[in-house]
Formats: sequence, C-alpha cells, structure tokens
Amino acid sequence: MKSKQELPACPVATTVSLIGSKWKLLIIRNLIKRPWRFNELMNSIDGISQKVLTTSLRELEKDGIIYRKDFKTNPPKVEYGLTELGQKLQGLLNLMADFGDYYKSKI
Amino acid sequence: MKSKQELPACPVATTVSLIGSKWKLLIIRNLIKRPWRFNELMNSIDGISQKVLTTSLRELEKDGIIYRKDFKTNPPKVEYGLTELGQKLQGLLNLMADFGDYYKSKI
Repeated sequence: MKSKQELPACPVATTVSLIGSKWKLLIIRNLIKRPWRFNELMNSIDGISQKVLTTSLRELEKDGIIYRKDFKTNPPKVEYGLTELGQKLQGLLNLMADFGDYYKSKI
Repeated sequence: MKSKQELPACPVATTVSLIGSKWKLLIIRNLIKRPWRFNELMNSIDGISQKVLTTSLRELEKDGIIYRKDFKTNPPKVEYGLTELGQKLQGLLNLMADFGDYYKSKI
C-alpha cells in the first residue's frame, strides 16, 4: 500500500494515482468478474504488452488493489484477483459501463 | 465525437478510450466545479506539461466531453467547461473521491 505521505491531498487524485491508467482500468474490469491468469489477461486485453501488464499487475498488487496467488504447482499456476479493497471499485466500474453505453446511444 | 466504429464493443473500454488517462481525469475533476481557463488548469494540475494539457483538452473537446469557448476579446480569453454529456461524469467523479477517501482511511 502507498503511505499517506505518498498520496495527493485530493481524494480524486488519490484514486487516479492508484488506478488512473488505461491498462489498469481494463485489468480491473476483467478481475471484477473472477480471478484471471496472466496469459488470459494478455490475450483478452487488446494491445497490452507483456511488460506493461507485468508492471501494472505489480503496482496494483503493491497498492493493495489486487492479490497474486501462486499455487506453487509444476507447471506453475498463478492467478490474480481483486482484494477486498479492490472489490470496492465495483460501483465505479458499473458507472463507467453506464457512461460508455450512454455515450454510444448519443452518437 | 468518435464514431461507433472507432469505439470498443465493451462499454467500460469505451469510457476508458474517452477519459482513461491520468491527466484527463484530473482535468475533468477540475471542470466538474466550473469552467476553467487554460493557465488556471496549468497551474492547478501538478506536473502536467503545456503540450499534454493542450492535447488532452483537444481530445476531450473532439470527443464531446468538454467545450472550448473563445470570447474573442483582446487580450484573448478562452475557457473550457463540461458539455451536457461531460456533466454525466459527475457520479463517476464522486465515486472516485469516495474511493480515495476510503483508501486513505485504510492505510
């Protein structure tokens, strides 16, 4: 998790510092439904590079939004899911979907 | 406005394609309150460059989220504000503020 000193005073800017990137928002959109494996995310998020996916997942994990579960099997199995804190983003994602639908209805 | 063909099928991805950048989200956060002038935005958004602010405002305008009003005065006065469509983002920004506050309460 980030410390209070690292976060902006403005609460909107705080959220932006945690999830305000195109790729993080799309990752969270997927994880809202169920845990995903790395390669599933790679294949499902159009245009994302392996490097950006890795970095984004690492940052989201560090910030307490997602967890990484290593099943310690051979072949390796690792999955990513939303933490309890990350699940609080459900309402935000719903409104993003509503806005996207509304936008499309207007053009 | 973007055409339907340019937008992703997923409504969340549609919203991400319109406002899914750190800078656009911070610009919209400001414009939710009242119209702003370019230099005011420059001075208020920590770390934004003139180039990125210009590009972000231009894209938001093209996508119908904000308007640009030129008062055609000398010295020039131009302001930016949310369109009726952009104002529909109020609920989303509120939830972003709520999440930021909640996050801070947990660390």
